[in-house]
Amino acid sequence: MRWAEGFIAVDWGTTNRRGYLIADGGRMTDEMEDDRGILAVGREGFDRAVADLKGRLGDRPLLMAGMVGSNRGWVEAPYVPCPAGLPELAANLKWVVRDRIAIVPGVSYSDGDAADVMRGEEMQILGAFAEGMVAADALICHPGTHNKWIRLEDGRITAFRTVMTGELFNLLREHSILADLLSAPAEVDDAFEAGVRKGLESDELMAELFSVRARVLLGKAPRESAASYTSGLLIGTDIRIGARAAPQEEIVVMGRPELTSLFAAALRIGGRTAREVDGEEAFLAGVKHLSELIQ
Amino acid sequence: MRWAEGFIAVDWGTTNRRGYLIADGGRMTDEMEDDRGILAVGREGFDRAVADLKGRLGDRPLLMAGMVGSNRGWVEAPYVPCPAGLPELAANLKWVVRDRIAIVPGVSYSDGDAADVMRGEEMQILGAFAEGMVAADALICHPGTHNKWIRLEDGRITAFRTVMTGELFNLLREHSILADLLSAPAEVDDAFEAGVRKGLESDELMAELFSVRARVLLGKAPRESAASYTSGLLIGTDIRIGARAAPQEEIVVMGRPELTSLFAAALRIGGRTAREVDGEEAFLAGVKHLSELIQ
Repeated sequence: MRWAEGFIAVDWGTTNRRGYLIADGGRMTDEMEDDRGILAVGREGFDRAVADLKGRLGDRPLLMAGMVGSNRGWVEAPYVPCPAGLPELAANLKWVVRDRIAIVPGVSYSDGDAADVMRGEEMQILGAFAEGMVAADALICHPGTHNKWIRLEDGRITAFRTVMTGELFNLLREHSILADLLSAPAEVDDAFEAGVRKGLESDELMAELFSVRARVLLGKAPRESAASYTSGLLIGTDIRIGARAAPQEEIVVMGRPELTSLFAAALRIGGRTAREVDGEEAFLAGVKHLSELIQ
Repeated sequence: MRWAEGFIAVDWGTTNRRGYLIADGGRMTDEMEDDRGILAVGREGFDRAVADLKGRLGDRPLLMAGMVGSNRGWVEAPYVPCPAGLPELAANLKWVVRDRIAIVPGVSYSDGDAADVMRGEEMQILGAFAEGMVAADALICHPGTHNKWIRLEDGRITAFRTVMTGELFNLLREHSILADLLSAPAEVDDAFEAGVRKGLESDELMAELFSVRARVLLGKAPRESAASYTSGLLIGTDIRIGARAAPQEEIVVMGRPELTSLFAAALRIGGRTAREVDGEEAFLAGVKHLSELIQ
């Protein structure tokens, strides 16, 4: 059938997109990346944006994941509720063009008052499991604009929680009273470690953030350390929330390497075992295994 | 002497300023307000901005408080460390023009790792005490862009802590993924109460914020309730941090009435006794009593 002969996989997010040409057998043979995320493309621009993708990678069937399936994307692909594995995603693909263009659904979690959603991370998580990069039962931390803590059980996503760490850091850096202190890149240094420790022990983040500025104003901390300290403070707070339910377990940190390295470092500062998995490799494993389930 | 015959008091903040003509005896007889905060005026614009003030309120001595004395204002007035009362402020006025134009210093707090600063609130707090609106020993909550929890002992500010609640709400409403949900005005309704209770009990604010969006996406909460719920969630979190050290004490909520009413309502939801004090009245009391200390 057509998909076994190769297809284009797209990780289409809010602010950028990555396209991959997948040959028979699941090998990736070509790729592209640009800033044509769903906000830049806009509702009416997807026909042209997809034609452009095909022009660059070839005229093949398309398998797309991420915010392209959201209510601000091309065609909405309703969330699949937990527990969700690759078979549930395959059974709920949203076909934009029958047999030719499919959008992978996101995953939702709902339990009493709790509610959460993801779009895109599920391909990486379930791909990593299918490829043997992650065990069938695992706690996964997926940093990004919205960091997600995911419980994988028997190869399926059974629960998850989103912490707005990355977005908060961006808001603070771009628009807040801390902006001028946060322009330097965050690094894993002594200030980062101090921030992580404060975040792990304190439940007063909204006050600790102002202290960053006050300490600089009063000459108690160098302004050069503020970005690393604040990054550590936010990540430490995030880990306190996400990892508290499993105090002994190894944590798999999956995503973009520049973010997984920060979170893995913070986890180790907190005495946790962390293992990094490259998010792009996991995504490619996900689309390969998912494509094999397409009838 | 000159000051007893009347003066102009200015509460000069980051984004706006309020000027008052104070007659002999401390009565306010004229006032103005505009959006010429320190950011709009800029370093080089203060001569003209002050001339404009005098043109509208009269050629009198000027007593100015707020961000006008910050390192981004007209002339920096170094912080007075805690404990700070009106006598300490009077002894540390920054004279821009001898005997004619004075800037009130801010107050700083430093203890080990802790550090905090304020500019402007001190005039309200110490004025309210001098006028008998607040007891000599009190816990004061001063909501604003940066909410402050202030310990007043024997009529002096001895410690305080800033929580970035107002700024975070503004960042979320203007720039975050929650922006479209937060455009409605926050009101004291059932959703606000639910948010306050969640904030008081949870130490996972950064995760609870994303849940606001997820519950709407999954149809578990009406989008109309999101602004009030989120306001309550942030204020409840703020109160958990600020009021925990004094579980039985009455809390004086001082500032702009539209904010003190929200915080007082949240405090009452949490079973606390709250009393509101109008921040403008307190400021006018502050400049009156401070002017009497000017030699």
